[in-house]
Amino acid sequence: MNIAFIGLGNMGLPMARNLVKAGFQVKGFDLSAPVLEAFAAAGGTPCACAADTLQSADVVVTMLPASRHVQSLWLGASGLLHRLRPGTLLIDSSTIGATVAREVASAAAALGLDMVDAPVSGGTASAEAGTLTFMVGGTPEQLERARPVLESMGQRVLHAGGIGAGQVAKACNNMLLGIIMAGSSEALQLGISHGLDPKVLSDIIGVSTGANWVLTNYNPCPGTLDTAPSARGYSGGFATDLMLKDLGLAVEAATDTGAIVPVGSAARNLFAMHSAAGQGKLDCSSVFHLLAARTS
Amino acid sequence: MNIAFIGLGNMGLPMARNLVKAGFQVKGFDLSAPVLEAFAAAGGTPCACAADTLQSADVVVTMLPASRHVQSLWLGASGLLHRLRPGTLLIDSSTIGATVAREVASAAAALGLDMVDAPVSGGTASAEAGTLTFMVGGTPEQLERARPVLESMGQRVLHAGGIGAGQVAKACNNMLLGIIMAGSSEALQLGISHGLDPKVLSDIIGVSTGANWVLTNYNPCPGTLDTAPSARGYSGGFATDLMLKDLGLAVEAATDTGAIVPVGSAARNLFAMHSAAGQGKLDCSSVFHLLAARTS
Amino acid sequence: MNIAFIGLGNMGLPMARNLVKAGFQVKGFDLSAPVLEAFAAAGGTPCACAADTLQSADVVVTMLPASRHVQSLWLGASGLLHRLRPGTLLIDSSTIGATVAREVASAAAALGLDMVDAPVSGGTASAEAGTLTFMVGGTPEQLERARPVLESMGQRVLHAGGIGAGQVAKACNNMLLGIIMAGSSEALQLGISHGLDPKVLSDIIGVSTGANWVLTNYNPCPGTLDTAPSARGYSGGFATDLMLKDLGLAVEAATDTGAIVPVGSAARNLFAMHSAAGQGKLDCSSVFHLLAARTS
Amino acid sequence: MNIAFIGLGNMGLPMARNLVKAGFQVKGFDLSAPVLEAFAAAGGTPCACAADTLQSADVVVTMLPASRHVQSLWLGASGLLHRLRPGTLLIDSSTIGATVAREVASAAAALGLDMVDAPVSGGTASAEAGTLTFMVGGTPEQLERARPVLESMGQRVLHAGGIGAGQVAKACNNMLLGIIMAGSSEALQLGISHGLDPKVLSDIIGVSTGANWVLTNYNPCPGTLDTAPSARGYSGGFATDLMLKDLGLAVEAATDTGAIVPVGSAARNLFAMHSAAGQGKLDCSSVFHLLAARTS
Repeated sequence: MNIAFIGLGNMGLPMARNLVKAGFQVKGFDLSAPVLEAFAAAGGTPCACAADTLQSADVVVTMLPASRHVQSLWLGASGLLHRLRPGTLLIDSSTIGATVAREVASAAAALGLDMVDAPVSGGTASAEAGTLTFMVGGTPEQLERARPVLESMGQRVLHAGGIGAGQVAKACNNMLLGIIMAGSSEALQLGISHGLDPKVLSDIIGVSTGANWVLTNYNPCPGTLDTAPSARGYSGGFATDLMLKDLGLAVEAATDTGAIVPVGSAARNLFAMHSAAGQGKLDCSSVFHLLAARTS
Repeated sequence: MNIAFIGLGNMGLPMARNLVKAGFQVKGFDLSAPVLEAFAAAGGTPCACAADTLQSADVVVTMLPASRHVQSLWLGASGLLHRLRPGTLLIDSSTIGATVAREVASAAAALGLDMVDAPVSGGTASAEAGTLTFMVGGTPEQLERARPVLESMGQRVLHAGGIGAGQVAKACNNMLLGIIMAGSSEALQLGISHGLDPKVLSDIIGVSTGANWVLTNYNPCPGTLDTAPSARGYSGGFATDLMLKDLGLAVEAATDTGAIVPVGSAARNLFAMHSAAGQGKLDCSSVFHLLAARTS
Repeated sequence: MNIAFIGLGNMGLPMARNLVKAGFQVKGFDLSAPVLEAFAAAGGTPCACAADTLQSADVVVTMLPASRHVQSLWLGASGLLHRLRPGTLLIDSSTIGATVAREVASAAAALGLDMVDAPVSGGTASAEAGTLTFMVGGTPEQLERARPVLESMGQRVLHAGGIGAGQVAKACNNMLLGIIMAGSSEALQLGISHGLDPKVLSDIIGVSTGANWVLTNYNPCPGTLDTAPSARGYSGGFATDLMLKDLGLAVEAATDTGAIVPVGSAARNLFAMHSAAGQGKLDCSSVFHLLAARTS
Repeated sequence: MNIAFIGLGNMGLPMARNLVKAGFQVKGFDLSAPVLEAFAAAGGTPCACAADTLQSADVVVTMLPASRHVQSLWLGASGLLHRLRPGTLLIDSSTIGATVAREVASAAAALGLDMVDAPVSGGTASAEAGTLTFMVGGTPEQLERARPVLESMGQRVLHAGGIGAGQVAKACNNMLLGIIMAGSSEALQLGISHGLDPKVLSDIIGVSTGANWVLTNYNPCPGTLDTAPSARGYSGGFATDLMLKDLGLAVEAATDTGAIVPVGSAARNLFAMHSAAGQGKLDCSSVFHLLAARTS
C-alpha cells in the first residue's frame, strides 16, 4: 500500500518512520530540508512538495500544526483535494477544531474520498516507540480501513464516534487533564501554605476521592515523584504551549455549541498566564509554581 | 477506657455505636431525644447535657456540624474545656476550619489536654460499617493515643501532619474532588453537545490522561455506571450542600494564607448555584445537569 | 450614490430605511419576503438575490448574523467579491470575528476594493432613530469615505484602528459590559443575602469606586430603576443570546492571540448557563436571577 | 465630648488628628511609640494601653487591621467591653467581617452599649483631608449619634442598613471595584494583543456601555491617564494587598450566606497571584501587567 505522509515534525517523523518499518511505501513532505533527509535515511521517499506525495497514494496521513494548515492544504483555490483519486483514505492526525475536520471531510466526501480524524495522545517518546493512542472519528468502515495504518504507529485505536468525534474526544480529555493539572496544583499549594508536606498530602489524596492520573503519574510538585517532569526541571513531557493550544480548542468547541465550561476556562486562562510569563516551553505541570502562595 | 461522644447525628450515632461494640464505655450527648434513645438501645449511656458526658472521660470524641459548634462547646464563657481532667484526649472528627481546630487545641494544651483533629472521609454507610478514613492532625504520640479509638470506627488512619493538618488535608482532597466532579461533568457535556456518546467518551478518558476516581467510580452522567448515584436519581452519596460546605472551608483556608485557588473557586460557585437552585439535598454529582448546553 | 444593503433583519431594515431617507439610492436583499416588502414600502429597491443588489453599487453595507454568513457571501467558489467594480467600498456592520474581517478585507484589497468593519453599538430603537454608534476599523481615508453613509444611520462614528479594530473594540467593550453586568449582579445579590436593600446598596456603589454605567443606567435588580429592562420583566434591551454571542467572540479573540481573560471567561460561562436554562431571549440583565443565593 | 481612639496607623492617625482639630478631647492608643508621639504633637492625649483611653470616654473609635484585632480588643477573657460605661458609643471603622461586627455589637448591646460599623472608603490622602466616605451599619438613631464624629473625619456618611451593613456594603463595592479593575485590564490587554491603541480603546469604552469609574478615573494602563497610579509607577493609591484583603472578606461573606460570586472569585484569585508574585505593595491597578498576553 502507498502512503503519503505530510508534516514530518517532532511527531510526524517518528510516526512516518514506523510506517516504513511496517513495510508500507511511504512518500513524505515537510517544509524542513533536514527533516526530509532524516526521512530519506529511514527508508522513506522524500518529495519536493506536498502534491508530489499524492501520486498513486492509497492513504494520506497528515500531521500538521493547526487548523489553518489543514484547511489550506486541502481546501480553497490552491487546495489539493482534487488531486486525490476517488477512494483514497485521508487520515488527519493533526489536533485541530472538530468543525474544520468536518468541513474538510465534507469536501472530501463530495469527491468520493474517505476521511477520518485521528488525533493522538502521547508525546514524542510514544511516537518513536509506536505506542501512541489514536482517538478516531469516522464510520466503523472507515475506521477499519484506517486501522492497519494506525496500528503501525500506535498501541491503541479508540473509536470516538462520527467524523470530528476524535477531535472532540481529545479536546474533552485534554481539557479535563488541564483542569486536573491546575486543580491538583492548587490543592497541593493550599496544603503547603498550611504547612503540610506535599508528598504526604499526595499520598492521602491518592487513596481518597480526589485520586487521579496526574497526581499518581505526573505529580507537578518537585520531590514527590521521581519519574515525573517535575523531577527533572519540567523538561520533556507535554509543553505548556501545547496544553494552551488544546485548551483553546476546547473553549472554541464550547463556543460552537453553547457548552458551559467555567472550570475548563479557568484552567485555560492559567496556562495562558503561564505561557505569557515565558514558561511556554516547559512541561505544563510547571503551572504548579504559578499557583504558589506568598511564603511571608 | 471511658469515652465521651458529643454529636450523635447521621454520622456520629453509627460511629458511637461502633465504639460500644468495640467494648468501650461510651457516654453520649445530642440535642435530639430520639437519637439519644437509639444510642441507649445500642448500649451507650445517654446524658442530659454535654457536660455530663465528661465525668471520668479519658477520651472525648466530637462530631459536630460546623466550626461555631466546636467553638461554643469548648471555648468562651460557657466553654467546657476546663471541666476535663488534665491528660484527657480530645478527638474532633467534625469537619471545620483548620484555624478553629488550632485555636481549640491551643486552649486545650494550656490546660494540659491533648487534641487531634480527625475529620472523616466516607458517608453514613462507611460510618455504619466502620470503614471510615480518618485524616489526622497532631503529633505522632497523640495519633498513637487516638489510634485504638479511631480504628474502632474506621479502616484507615492517615497522618496528615501537626494539629489542623487533618482538616487541611480533607479540605484539599474535597476541593480537588469538587473540581474533578465539575470538570468531568463539563468534559462529558462538551462531548454530548458535539454528539458524542457519554459512555464511549467516559471509556476513552478513563484510559487516557484525564482519568480520575470520579469518572471511574462515580460517573455523574446517568447511564454510564450502574453503581453511581447518577444511576439512582442522585439519591444517597455525598450531598451538594455538604460539598458546598467543604468547598467553602477550602476557600476560607485559601483566604487565610493568601493561597491561589481559581479552579477551586470556580467549582465552589457552581455548587453554590446548584444548591441555590434547590438541589442541595441531591448527590453532588447532579451538578452535571447544571452544566448541560442548550439542545436546540 | 448607489448603495447595496444585504441583510434586512431587526437591525438592518431600519438602518437601510435611514439611508433611503437620507437620499441614497438603496437596493436591498434579505431571505425574508415580508422584510423585502417592508423595505420596498419605505422607498428601497428590493432585489431577488444578493448579486442583484451589487449592480452599479458604489457602497455595499452588510448586516449579517455571524462570521460564516459574511464568509460565504464574499469568499469561496460562490463568493460575490469579484462581482464588485474596483473602487467599491464595503462596509460590514455585522458583529463577527476580527480574523474573518481581516480575511475578507484582504481578499477585497486584492481586487482593488476598500473595506471597513463597522459593527454597531445600540439596539433596534437606536437603529430606528438613527442614533447608533459605529466602531470602525480601516484606514483614515477609508473611514472618511464611509462617514457620510455611517452618519446617515448613526450618531457617533468612532475610529478604533486598522481593519478588524472595529470588531475588536466592540468585543472588548461588550466583554467588559458582560463582566460588569455579572459583577454588579453578584455584588447586589451578596448584599441582599446579608439583608441589605438593593436600592440603597446601588446608591452607595453609584457614588463609590465601583460605579459603572450598568448600575446607573441598566440596574439588573427589579425595583431599583424604572427605565431599565429589569423594571419591565427583562423585555427589550440586549438579549442574553446576543450577549453570549459577543462574549464568545471575545473569548475567541483571546484564543487567537493568547490573551488572558479569566474574568471575561467566567462571565461568558454565566451567560451560557443562563441561555441553556431557557432565558436566551430575555434581556441579559436577567442573569441577576441566576446569581441569587438560597433564601432559606 | 471625650473620644477614645484605638489604632493610630496610616489611616487612624490622620483621622484622630481631624477629631482633635474639630475640638474633641481625644485619648489615643497604638502599639507604635513614634505614632503616639505624633499623636501627642497634634494635641491628642497618648495612653500607655488601650484600657487607659476608655476612662470617661463617651465615644470609642477603633481603626484596626483585621477581624481578630477587633475581637481580641473587646471580647474574650481579656476583652475590654466591660470597662465601658453603659451608653458609650462604639464606632468601628476597621474593615472586618460583617459576622464579627455583629458578634461584637451583640456583646456590646448586652452591656447597654451602642455600636455602629463604619468602614471607610478613600485612602490616606482622604484621611488627612477629612474627605473620607463612611459606610455605616446601625440603627438610624445610632447613626445620628455617630454623625458629628464621622463628619469631623469625612465628607460623606452613607447609611447602609442595620449593624454589619456597613461592612457588607464596603465588601460589595470593593468586590465590584476589583472585578472592574481586573475586567478593564483584560479588555485593554485583549485590545492591545490585537494591535489597538489602549488610549483610543479606553476612549471608545468610556462613551459606551462598558463605561465605569475605573477606566475614567483610575485607568490601569500607563500612558492613558496622567492622574492615575499607572502614570507614576503604581505608587500610592490602593495597594494590591489591601484589595486582596477586601476581596477575601467578600468571598467569606459569600461563604457565610451561600452567595454566588464566580466573577468576584476570579478577580480575588488574580490579586492573590499578583500579591504572591511580589506586587502586594504596588497599587492594585498594576494587576494590568499580570494580564498581558505574550508579545511574540
